[in-house]
Amino acid sequence: MNLILLCKEDFISINRVRLQGRRYEHAREILKVTSGKILHVGLLGGKTGSGTVISITEKELELEVLLTHEPPEPLSVTVILAMPRPKVLNRVLQGITAMGIKQVFLLNTWRVDKSYWQSAALEPAAIQAQLILGLEQARDTILPEVQLQPRFKPFVEDILPTIAAGTCALAAHPVSSQPCPANVQQAVTLAIGPEGGFTTYEIEKLVAAGLTSIHLGNRPLRVETAVPALIGRLLPCS
Amino acid sequence: MNLILLCKEDFISINRVRLQGRRYEHAREILKVTSGKILHVGLLGGKTGSGTVISITEKELELEVLLTHEPPEPLSVTVILAMPRPKVLNRVLQGITAMGIKQVFLLNTWRVDKSYWQSAALEPAAIQAQLILGLEQARDTILPEVQLQPRFKPFVEDILPTIAAGTCALAAHPVSSQPCPANVQQAVTLAIGPEGGFTTYEIEKLVAAGLTSIHLGNRPLRVETAVPALIGRLLPCS
Repeated sequence: MNLILLCKEDFISINRVRLQGRRYEHAREILKVTSGKILHVGLLGGKTGSGTVISITEKELELEVLLTHEPPEPLSVTVILAMPRPKVLNRVLQGITAMGIKQVFLLNTWRVDKSYWQSAALEPAAIQAQLILGLEQARDTILPEVQLQPRFKPFVEDILPTIAAGTCALAAHPVSSQPCPANVQQAVTLAIGPEGGFTTYEIEKLVAAGLTSIHLGNRPLRVETAVPALIGRLLPCS
Repeated sequence: MNLILLCKEDFISINRVRLQGRRYEHAREILKVTSGKILHVGLLGGKTGSGTVISITEKELELEVLLTHEPPEPLSVTVILAMPRPKVLNRVLQGITAMGIKQVFLLNTWRVDKSYWQSAALEPAAIQAQLILGLEQARDTILPEVQLQPRFKPFVEDILPTIAAGTCALAAHPVSSQPCPANVQQAVTLAIGPEGGFTTYEIEKLVAAGLTSIHLGNRPLRVETAVPALIGRLLPCS
C-alpha cells in the first residue's frame, strides 16, 4: 500500500478523513504512524496528495488531507484477456491496474475452463477489491473498467473491431512469425490467450477483427508472466 | 507442466523411463494419458523430444523416449535481484526461469527484510524445485544458476563490474531520468531493487560498477510485476 486510497464517505469535514479497518491497520501495523506523520493519499477517481496524521487511537485514524496532484498518466493499452483461473485473475488484475491500464475485457475462449465463469472472484465487489490493491500499489486513483465477455464470437465480431480501429492492435500467439513490437507510441489493443493459447479459429477471428498476431519468443509463459512481459515491452517510456 | 523433465535416474534402459510421484500424477490426473499417447519430454541439462506412453498403472508410468531437439535458446540476461520475500521469490524464480534466464544473483540491500535470508525457500532443494517448475512451463531443460549474495558491498565492488563489462548493464530505479531501452540486441545485466527501491547509496554503487540507472515509468510496481515487465521489454525478439 504505497498510497492510502480515500473515498468520499471517509470525509468528516472538507479536509479531514477518519479511517478504520484495513487502511487503519496498515497505517498502524505496517507504517507504525504517529501524530504528525505525513502519508501518501489519493481520492478514488480524483487527485493525490498528502495526509497528515492528526490522531491515531486503538480503533481509528484521522488525517488532514491536502489533494494537490493529478494521478499518474494512464497507459493507452486496452487488454483483452482470456479468463484465467480465479487466483491468477486476482494477481493479474492487480498487476495490470498497477501498470496503468484502464480498460480490460475478460473473454471466453475455447481453452478457458468453463468453471472459471462461476467463480466468486468475478463478483463486482471482488474485482473492485483487486483493482483497489493495484491502485494503492501504483499510487493511482482511477479505477480500470473491467468487462466480462462470456461469448467469444459476438464480442470479436461486433465490439472488438471498434476497439482495435486506429490502435496498434495485437494478439499474442507464441507460434506467430511476427515479433512483438516495443516502445509503441500509439494506443494499443492487446489480446492475450489462455494457458494453451488461442485456437487457430480464434486467431483467425482476431485477425479478421483487425489484430496482428505476434509472439514474444517461443516459450509458453504463464499468464501472470506473459501479461506484464507484453505490457512492459509495449509501453511508451521516454 | 508443458514438458515432462527427466533425469538420468529415471531411465530403466537406453530409451525408456519409469516415472512415479509428481510427474506420474500429472500425466494421469491432468493429461489423462493412455497407452500410445505422445508427451513432450526433456532431459535435465540435455535435449527435448517425445515420450510415448508404453504403460500406465495405478502407481507408475513408462515412456519410450526420443530426444531429438535442442532446448530453446537461453536469454543473455543476468538478473541481480534484491532478495524478495519467500512467496514472491518462488513465483519470480519460476517466471524468470520460464523466460530463459540462466544466471540470477539474489542480493541483500538496505530495504530487504533481514528475516528473508533465514527462509527455508533458500535451501538449494527448494530453489531447484522452483527452477524445475519454470523449465517445465517453458519446455526448457537447462537450469539457471542461482547465487546468494548476502553482502551488498563486496558483491557490487568486486564481482559486479566483471559481470557488467561489455553488456547493456542497467539498474531499475523508478526515479531515474533515463527510460528503459527495449529490444536490446546485446547481453544484458539487470539489477532490480526491493519493494521501496534501492537507496541513493546503493544506486551510486551500482552506477560505479558500470550500471546505468533506468526507469519504466514512475509507478512503483511489485517485484513480480516489475521483473517480467523489464525482461519482456529488454529481450531481443525478431
